[in-house]
Amino acid sequence: MVDKRKVGVLGGGQLGRMLIEAANRLNIQVNILDAAASPAKQISAHDGHITGSFKDAAAVKELAQSCDVVTVEIEHVDTQMLEEVAGSVVVEPSWKTLRIIKDKFQQKGYLKEHGVAVADSVELEGASPETIKEVGSKFGYPFMLKSKTEAYDGRGNFVVRSERDAAKAKEVLGDRPLYAERWADFRLELAVMVVKTKDGVLTFPTVETVHEDSVCKLTYAPPRNVSAETSARAQELAKKAIAAFEGKGVFGVEMFLLKDDSLLVNEIAPRPHNSGHYTIEACPLSQYDAHLRAILDLPIPESSLRLREPAIMLNILGGLTPDSHSQIARKALESPNASIHLYGKGDARPGRKMGHITVTAPSLSAAEREMQPLIDLVDNQKGKPLGPKDNFKEDPLVAVIMGSDSDLPVLEAGLKLLKDFEIPVTVRITSAHRTPDHLREFSKSAIFTTVKVIIGAAGGAAHLPGMSASWTTLPVIGLPVKATHLDGVDSLYSMTQMPRGEPVATVGINNSTNAALLAIRILGATDAGIREKLRVWMEGNEKEVLRKDQELQDIGAEAYLAKMKKK
Amino acid sequence: MVDKRKVGVLGGGQLGRMLIEAANRLNIQVNILDAAASPAKQISAHDGHITGSFKDAAAVKELAQSCDVVTVEIEHVDTQMLEEVAGSVVVEPSWKTLRIIKDKFQQKGYLKEHGVAVADSVELEGASPETIKEVGSKFGYPFMLKSKTEAYDGRGNFVVRSERDAAKAKEVLGDRPLYAERWADFRLELAVMVVKTKDGVLTFPTVETVHEDSVCKLTYAPPRNVSAETSARAQELAKKAIAAFEGKGVFGVEMFLLKDDSLLVNEIAPRPHNSGHYTIEACPLSQYDAHLRAILDLPIPESSLRLREPAIMLNILGGLTPDSHSQIARKALESPNASIHLYGKGDARPGRKMGHITVTAPSLSAAEREMQPLIDLVDNQKGKPLGPKDNFKEDPLVAVIMGSDSDLPVLEAGLKLLKDFEIPVTVRITSAHRTPDHLREFSKSAIFTTVKVIIGAAGGAAHLPGMSASWTTLPVIGLPVKATHLDGVDSLYSMTQMPRGEPVATVGINNSTNAALLAIRILGATDAGIREKLRVWMEGNEKEVLRKDQELQDIGAEAYLAKMKKK
Repeated sequence: MVDKRKVGVLGGGQLGRMLIEAANRLNIQVNILDAAASPAKQISAHDGHITGSFKDAAAVKELAQSCDVVTVEIEHVDTQMLEEVAGSVVVEPSWKTLRIIKDKFQQKGYLKEHGVAVADSVELEGASPETIKEVGSKFGYPFMLKSKTEAYDGRGNFVVRSERDAAKAKEVLGDRPLYAERWADFRLELAVMVVKTKDGVLTFPTVETVHEDSVCKLTYAPPRNVSAETSARAQELAKKAIAAFEGKGVFGVEMFLLKDDSLLVNEIAPRPHNSGHYTIEACPLSQYDAHLRAILDLPIPESSLRLREPAIMLNILGGLTPDSHSQIARKALESPNASIHLYGKGDARPGRKMGHITVTAPSLSAAEREMQPLIDLVDNQKGKPLGPKDNFKEDPLVAVIMGSDSDLPVLEAGLKLLKDFEIPVTVRITSAHRTPDHLREFSKSAIFTTVKVIIGAAGGAAHLPGMSASWTTLPVIGLPVKATHLDGVDSLYSMTQMPRGEPVATVGINNSTNAALLAIRILGATDAGIREKLRVWMEGNEKEVLRKDQELQDIGAEAYLAKMKKK
Repeated sequence: MVDKRKVGVLGGGQLGRMLIEAANRLNIQVNILDAAASPAKQISAHDGHITGSFKDAAAVKELAQSCDVVTVEIEHVDTQMLEEVAGSVVVEPSWKTLRIIKDKFQQKGYLKEHGVAVADSVELEGASPETIKEVGSKFGYPFMLKSKTEAYDGRGNFVVRSERDAAKAKEVLGDRPLYAERWADFRLELAVMVVKTKDGVLTFPTVETVHEDSVCKLTYAPPRNVSAETSARAQELAKKAIAAFEGKGVFGVEMFLLKDDSLLVNEIAPRPHNSGHYTIEACPLSQYDAHLRAILDLPIPESSLRLREPAIMLNILGGLTPDSHSQIARKALESPNASIHLYGKGDARPGRKMGHITVTAPSLSAAEREMQPLIDLVDNQKGKPLGPKDNFKEDPLVAVIMGSDSDLPVLEAGLKLLKDFEIPVTVRITSAHRTPDHLREFSKSAIFTTVKVIIGAAGGAAHLPGMSASWTTLPVIGLPVKATHLDGVDSLYSMTQMPRGEPVATVGINNSTNAALLAIRILGATDAGIREKLRVWMEGNEKEVLRKDQELQDIGAEAYLAKMKKK
């Protein structure tokens, strides 16, 4: 075994269960404090588990006495007792951190003190019409009313749309301790899993989270339509937020990406998190591996936290019937790249997290295509009509740019070929001389999209592909277009004779077929599916020439010529 | 849950344990028949397990009564009892199959009857000097003596090198029922995991297995230095072998690849197999998922069995000290792409399978590089001196071909650049006109190697890159070399003006720097590491020009010119 220490966990739900999956593979004993036969205990057969509630001080003490390191799968625990036992057992993350984070208002204040951007918030003495009015005049409408404690998966949150909502808020939130938060007008939500070790703070990739009815529905890794620069900023913000807290382990940081591209931290979880489930398949180390290693001071190579392949995670929630969630899992069995995780929970109450599905694929659009039927089933179960399927747009792999629309007829054959090969393409008009800034912007940002090859068509003093190549690290194919003078040799030379440093892969004058085929070869170098299509296509050409030769033998040159002239 | 049926397994070692890992994620109950606290039972806490031996008929019957489907993790079981219970419970694979396979001599005979290539073998009445001599005169030396039953991991095998080995054979094999087998003079060993479902026979990819002291040490997926064609033949042979047997589930097929490139089936396992462990990380579905789904008639999409990324599996065996295997596991914690599986076994007897490590990476050579320190540790523990590290040769990503060695000076700058970018390269002289067959062979086989881009340099009537492109689907870069006449324009035209169908990505005359950079861009389109190096390199060029401009501003054009002339 790699480590003889025993780990104790407060809580044995799905997070504890997936932590035990990771621990089982390293033969590390994990003792769970939770009800008998809780999800985590089902996959761990030893007599070290403790039956009881993770909110019960005596049970926490008993767990602590049986372990070397104590951690949590939920922050709503008895931090008093953790503080008490911290003298005799290692508690990770620190009870101080858990105490701050479990009170969301305190959490926000703490983050603000440490220079981390969060939404403005204000403490409330209950949701009376007067207070609501006061906050509304300060923050405007809508704003959020939130319970300071025991709030998760949308429980304890209420959207106040006008001062008339006071009664309803009281009904929903009861007498819980409350605070109000300014509405964050976000474009989308991002999340980053952060790993705090004895040596420093590491991050998993940035993901996009999609919530429905205040519960996480989907996670996209990487986020859709978010630049690499913004993703990196989200990682930095998450790092900064977690560096402010004491203790080791993984932390989930949920953020808002506002419409002005700025980021706010929404909420922190001092433990593995739903938005990190995708790491089980998509990264060399999962968030559970990372948590276990961090609290035990075992090595975590930084590159273990990278994304191996784009991934989408879909939560399986309890639905309207006791069987709704099983239908989703069964449908996922037919999906070739879907990994199914069911949590061994009992009854499927509506909204209860029963499991999740992760699809990984070479591109996010391939993962989306595979996940879509499962999302449709989820939506259908909720009574939503299925939307039209044909609006599903593929992310382009090839960008075709031309200096003028007069080049389009030359490109026609190549574009048709790319379509025949089912290669998604984006076609743009951008001139090196008339729209130099547009060309620059396009070329510089191409690397942050799904585009892997650029084809540039231009005639005359053809600067387009050469300038594009100067602003990108992607391979650029040059297609010389024959203009009025010089038979296209001018643009051929303009492309091939680029200075050392910025090559243009030049093909024959007006030969857009070859430009397309070269793009296909480049994509095929690392995509066996595309390569196979090309092999079959080339074989077809070979057969066609052999067939013509046979015909020539059969009917003779004279008849063949006569036939040709008829056409 | 996706399925309410209960699965019973005869045997609860590591294979049963990894089967339970898969079943746990689908919340399928698996009842294990084996000793208490066996590896599989440790990760499955319910009261359906049975304590006893999988060779004990009464215990098998008890297990069968508790389940809907019975399967095995080992073939050395009581098939009489399985035959008896098969009337009341589903047994997969069929007891008939298990009965044939558990007797290796019968297995060979059965395969031969069904037209599957196996080594010649002959039954023996004990290993007397007379019989040995008789077999030796028939098969020649060396030949194999094998126990018909209870043989695995090399136990029950003996190599007879001359008739003088009779006494030693008797000592090693005792009174076991024996057969002799002709020596297979193999180049290497291959294995394929086959999945037999209600609908047909599917295969996982072909892998190479490396044995040491008759125990599997390493698995390489895909195999090293084996053509795609041979791998496909191995899959077909494995499919044919398993199609001959009754029942559902996964089967391991071990094969010899002989020096004449023909294949022989060595041995079949009617269950998950060591050579399929790599599938847990490297394929969308693991062999354990596939076994569970096959015996329960759940869907198995064919593309779920593909290789996502090249992978290497290293077994962790018990070593000379009780801690040897833990040292290997601990070392693997530092390896960024290593997944560690420890089996929860007790004492580490030398040679006992304690766990395994799988490394997956974008290329097999990257996986090899990462695995090498772990293999070194294993070898070192066995007292082998560590070999020199610098003989570790990278598989080439770029092939540079030239028509004549006179082109080499033109290529110098490009080759240096590829070296600076740490891109492994193979450089060959092959002429379209003087060695057309060699060029054809080279170009046709390139796709079965690690090469992803070809650079062809040629002068004059430069046919080299164009002909190469006609024989491959890989992208081919053309580097026109200036010859005695026409300033290189002849070869530039020969490359760019290829007919529709076979493009050559042409760069400037004599500009091997740009040929190399284009290869780097093509590789970088799908490799972020290479792309980042290119970005930094281009930034360096940018800074250099800006620096020169600054100097020109600082000292003026006159002084700058004077400085230039001095150089």
